[in-house]
Amino acid sequence: MKIRIGIYGYGNLGRGVESSVLQNKDMELVGVFTRRLPKNVTTLFDTPVYNAKDIGTFKDKIDVLIVCGGSATDLPIQTPFLAEMFNVVDSFDTHANIPAHFDNVDRSSRLCGTTSMISVGWDPGIFSLGRLYSETILPEGNTYTFWGEGVSQGHSDAIRRIEGVADAKQYTIPVPATVEKVRAGSTDTFSAREMHTRECYVVVKDGADKSRIEREIIHMPNYFENHKTTVAFVSQEVLNKDFSGYPHGGSVIRAGKTGVDGKSTGIIECSLKLDSNPEFTASVLVAYARALTRLHNDGVIGCLTVYDIPPKYLTTKSDQEIIKNLL
Amino acid sequence: MKIRIGIYGYGNLGRGVESSVLQNKDMELVGVFTRRLPKNVTTLFDTPVYNAKDIGTFKDKIDVLIVCGGSATDLPIQTPFLAEMFNVVDSFDTHANIPAHFDNVDRSSRLCGTTSMISVGWDPGIFSLGRLYSETILPEGNTYTFWGEGVSQGHSDAIRRIEGVADAKQYTIPVPATVEKVRAGSTDTFSAREMHTRECYVVVKDGADKSRIEREIIHMPNYFENHKTTVAFVSQEVLNKDFSGYPHGGSVIRAGKTGVDGKSTGIIECSLKLDSNPEFTASVLVAYARALTRLHNDGVIGCLTVYDIPPKYLTTKSDQEIIKNLL
Repeated sequence: MKIRIGIYGYGNLGRGVESSVLQNKDMELVGVFTRRLPKNVTTLFDTPVYNAKDIGTFKDKIDVLIVCGGSATDLPIQTPFLAEMFNVVDSFDTHANIPAHFDNVDRSSRLCGTTSMISVGWDPGIFSLGRLYSETILPEGNTYTFWGEGVSQGHSDAIRRIEGVADAKQYTIPVPATVEKVRAGSTDTFSAREMHTRECYVVVKDGADKSRIEREIIHMPNYFENHKTTVAFVSQEVLNKDFSGYPHGGSVIRAGKTGVDGKSTGIIECSLKLDSNPEFTASVLVAYARALTRLHNDGVIGCLTVYDIPPKYLTTKSDQEIIKNLL
Repeated sequence: MKIRIGIYGYGNLGRGVESSVLQNKDMELVGVFTRRLPKNVTTLFDTPVYNAKDIGTFKDKIDVLIVCGGSATDLPIQTPFLAEMFNVVDSFDTHANIPAHFDNVDRSSRLCGTTSMISVGWDPGIFSLGRLYSETILPEGNTYTFWGEGVSQGHSDAIRRIEGVADAKQYTIPVPATVEKVRAGSTDTFSAREMHTRECYVVVKDGADKSRIEREIIHMPNYFENHKTTVAFVSQEVLNKDFSGYPHGGSVIRAGKTGVDGKSTGIIECSLKLDSNPEFTASVLVAYARALTRLHNDGVIGCLTVYDIPPKYLTTKSDQEIIKNLL
């Protein structure tokens, strides 16, 4: 019997999940659940669309519900709520709030006997695995996470909220000289400014004051003030044409010492280069939805993270097959 | 109580384990077990040395025995034998024989209630994880494993067995143009010759026929005949000075398709750059020895691989700590 997947929320991430499920022959799509009017939503592959408020009637028809809302306001409410009825997985990525979100989802799952996973994607997700594996193997060392080159949606949104800005995209770019130092085995400490550059491509409304906008961006606390930030003003046409899509990626690199007096260096690097950030995140969610189903069938309840999942639970292949062909 | 580690076999790998255990504060070294005369063996950090034939008397004094023999003739016998008395972990790396070795070790462990792990290191090991994670996340794609640049001990040994050769080291080097194609998203098939070059540095005995030796190397079946192979003759002094140590590394790279009609590409890369192949392998063995102890305490018996281990079992940190600081 195939694993029955539901998609809750249908933006870029939900569309990515729809495409990804179709690549996995052991899964089937039950439907897309939206807060919009279902008749106004057209899915990529004719997946049925239902009103989000009817989700409760699908309680026994979905094995895993993939919650595709945003981390700022959707997921903190949706995932704990839905975890009372379904096995759920989300890609919650506000790092500072992960422990609180975990507790909320865990409480719902334990109360209702479901199995849930949060923060599944590439960071948090694959990069989290890279950080854990590499620091346990090389306990004496430093771990560096570089993001980009890619579009940061949170930072793009922050620029769009500035008065006079019509549209914007922010590219995060690792500083090449620092990446090279770390790849060469440096265990130095680097400032935010030494790690990443932020390039902003901004469309302004007619008559807006460009120098004020540039100043507001460069000095924006938390987002830009500690980074080397460049601002370029472009037309909407150029933004649409030359800065389309949601590419992203990055690297987790750990350099650590081995041997007598740590005289040798070992470097572990996990890198991603993604044409589509939401599609890749969706692919990770779908792989972990498989693991979640199995763990639920094993009797595991409560909230989990990527750290709890034995890697073999992700694959459709048998133990014998992975030992023979992948190990 | 600390995890009590024993080291069975004391070559480069055993010495690496000794150094690695000292980096992990939750572990202690019980002793080194050797087939040589213990009084002739000096350990790096004054770890006690015992005769391998006395290992049985340590049955209740060791939590995990790390078996540091060679894959060709030692481990196929030692690991199944020792798994009857101890929780054991080894770095068995003869890929073709892994299923048979697994079955032998599994049988011993199940018979005697121990927990064992085989093929723990970087390949098999970390690269095996890279292959599984990446193919489950990107089911439509191709995975490539590049080894090097580094010293291949099996190939160096093969050269040394040729008549007239006094010493030799073989460096495996990925073909840069192929690595670049794969990193750019190619999913083409490449021949062995297109993937790796083999550079051989050979010291000959007085009066040996260099052209015959070069021909024998280049045409050696399985080892060299399908690769682009270069042979350079050097003096023993140059070999010792310029080609010392056991550096190695490499990359597992998977390029896969995401989205509608697979029009986007995602690339996952896991890379290692190691000054010391045996010291890094030892570090992986030690991290998994921790996981093995926990699984044994959980009541798991039989033989396991890296695919069975939830990542969190590798760390000394609490669930709360890794969720807060690493996820």
